[in-house]
Amino acid sequence: MNLIEDTVAAIAPLDEAAMRDARDHQARLTKPPGSLGVLEELSVKLAGLAGRCPPPLPEPAAVAVFAADHGVHAQGVTPWQQEVTAQMVANFLAGGAVVNAFAAQVGAEVSVVDVGVAADLDPAPGLLQRKIAHGTADMTLGPAMTMDEARRAVTAGIEVARDLVADGMGCLITGDMGIANTTASAALIAAFTGLPPERVTGRGTGIDDATHARKVEIVRTALARHGLPDDEATPLDVLAAVGGLEHAAIAGFVLGAAALRVPVVLDGVIAGAAALAAAALCPDAVGACVAGHRSAEPGHAAAIAELGLRPLVDLELRLGEGTGALLALPLVQGSVRVLHEVATFDSAGVSGKDAGTRN
Amino acid sequence: MNLIEDTVAAIAPLDEAAMRDARDHQARLTKPPGSLGVLEELSVKLAGLAGRCPPPLPEPAAVAVFAADHGVHAQGVTPWQQEVTAQMVANFLAGGAVVNAFAAQVGAEVSVVDVGVAADLDPAPGLLQRKIAHGTADMTLGPAMTMDEARRAVTAGIEVARDLVADGMGCLITGDMGIANTTASAALIAAFTGLPPERVTGRGTGIDDATHARKVEIVRTALARHGLPDDEATPLDVLAAVGGLEHAAIAGFVLGAAALRVPVVLDGVIAGAAALAAAALCPDAVGACVAGHRSAEPGHAAAIAELGLRPLVDLELRLGEGTGALLALPLVQGSVRVLHEVATFDSAGVSGKDAGTRN
Repeated sequence: MNLIEDTVAAIAPLDEAAMRDARDHQARLTKPPGSLGVLEELSVKLAGLAGRCPPPLPEPAAVAVFAADHGVHAQGVTPWQQEVTAQMVANFLAGGAVVNAFAAQVGAEVSVVDVGVAADLDPAPGLLQRKIAHGTADMTLGPAMTMDEARRAVTAGIEVARDLVADGMGCLITGDMGIANTTASAALIAAFTGLPPERVTGRGTGIDDATHARKVEIVRTALARHGLPDDEATPLDVLAAVGGLEHAAIAGFVLGAAALRVPVVLDGVIAGAAALAAAALCPDAVGACVAGHRSAEPGHAAAIAELGLRPLVDLELRLGEGTGALLALPLVQGSVRVLHEVATFDSAGVSGKDAGTRN
Repeated sequence: MNLIEDTVAAIAPLDEAAMRDARDHQARLTKPPGSLGVLEELSVKLAGLAGRCPPPLPEPAAVAVFAADHGVHAQGVTPWQQEVTAQMVANFLAGGAVVNAFAAQVGAEVSVVDVGVAADLDPAPGLLQRKIAHGTADMTLGPAMTMDEARRAVTAGIEVARDLVADGMGCLITGDMGIANTTASAALIAAFTGLPPERVTGRGTGIDDATHARKVEIVRTALARHGLPDDEATPLDVLAAVGGLEHAAIAGFVLGAAALRVPVVLDGVIAGAAALAAAALCPDAVGACVAGHRSAEPGHAAAIAELGLRPLVDLELRLGEGTGALLALPLVQGSVRVLHEVATFDSAGVSGKDAGTRN
């Protein structure tokens, strides 16, 4: 199984010439220079990712909702039952969740990928059955995954990205579902950034002060159990120790997108933690990443800061599923559409800034 | 001409019962309570505006780009020639501007309304010819408009809103074009908020320090010339003294939308200044307003703070035309779509928070 190494080897830095072309083209368009703010640099990055200007329009788009359960749920980190993971997967497949509503709004497809739901799920349209294990083990007692499981989950994510791009998708979007997955996210973010657990552990779906305090201690216990942060640990070591199966799969999804030079819009804290793992495996993978939004989770802000990404939407969302990233999709697409469709000063016969004497 | 007074009289407060229904419904949906952040309250507001839950989906949408010139251009507040207003109108009508690209991205129609372009424009598809004057007069020398012109411009905006809603539009979006219009916007915002000119006067399309300093002084001179701020001045007095024809028209557009209980997504600083005028004419008009984005202009942040609105997109845009508001449209539509399409815990068979004993 060399797909991980082969994928990492295929990831190239952003193409400087294409980025220069995009900056030059932006300057000729019929608008004041710089007036599209953050979206101008985004279009330049996507030109660099594609290796040409204009880059292809990032469409159609697909959100892959990676679902898995977490052994650390047994430690009482959330008031939600573990069964809700499988119940919400059924809700996604029936089209009844917010991810479905937002995907319909922005014209994206929804796939659900079972990489580790505790329950056995029946086959269904839209469900990709890639179960690696029936949830992770409790990271406070031992590794969440074996190294083999971690590698297989990363590989599954690479393959999902590859298959979606082969199906014609021009933009990938991360989604996630897994009761207790903000606990694993906090542990991963602490391990990859070196920040203390209390700085990166949030309230997830909404927990009280006592549960939050317990959650911070559980993250601290898990990190201590595995000697993290540890400069000697490989990214796969870290994923296996304290990650979730969906984190490993999303890390692979990011690597797969980057290798194929297709943008991947990251959702919230789960994707942020997974992207840190992807970046640790291959720093150039960040070139394919767009931070769809900044969630209300404190660890998420830390993760995207570490990745050097600027979030596009910032509305105190903390739902997950891919919902924040889906809302950012039209912004990503709009930024590229400008390079395709907007007239230049010359072509439109519009006088540029300072064209005449100031009157 | 009593359309202004009749429109103001038709504007009602948000419907409390519909808002309560929307809050109750949000709490039953298959997501953690509050996890959609700012979008939950937005959906509640739009239910209150419509007077029912769920409110209609805010679609289709149309952006009306109100175009006008400004006599204060003669004071040297910008390096752009006045002719660019008409040139950009031609660009909009040819489909070559960023507003066209973003409208195509989000599925909105574009109308251009000439309420005061200095040049005479030929009829064209998509151009609404409602010219009140060939630009305003220089506000540093006298009133920008006569009271009759101001009233006619407000009336034109009401009529454009009415006609678009009659054509089936479920969401209106403000757009604007007019070289020097950030100068008039700063004067309006200073007059309506009482903030000093240096706090609300920005760099518009991008001006150097010397031009910016001159622009601040010109705003100060204009306000002093007209004795503003002045608690005794009516909103129409303020518009006539220092406003633009497009500001007056957009104020009417907001009033028209509010009277018809249709949401209006505000673009940047020009719309913010105009909405202050609308709110001064009828405070309940703010109930129809959604702040599409926060622009890089300092006066814009002041205006939306005064209106009590929270911007949806915050990406350092400073283009105008309606571009920032268009990017927010999918967020507005998504917030309402949740109320229509997302399953409840009961209907989807998903266990709610605290459904079992904490394990």
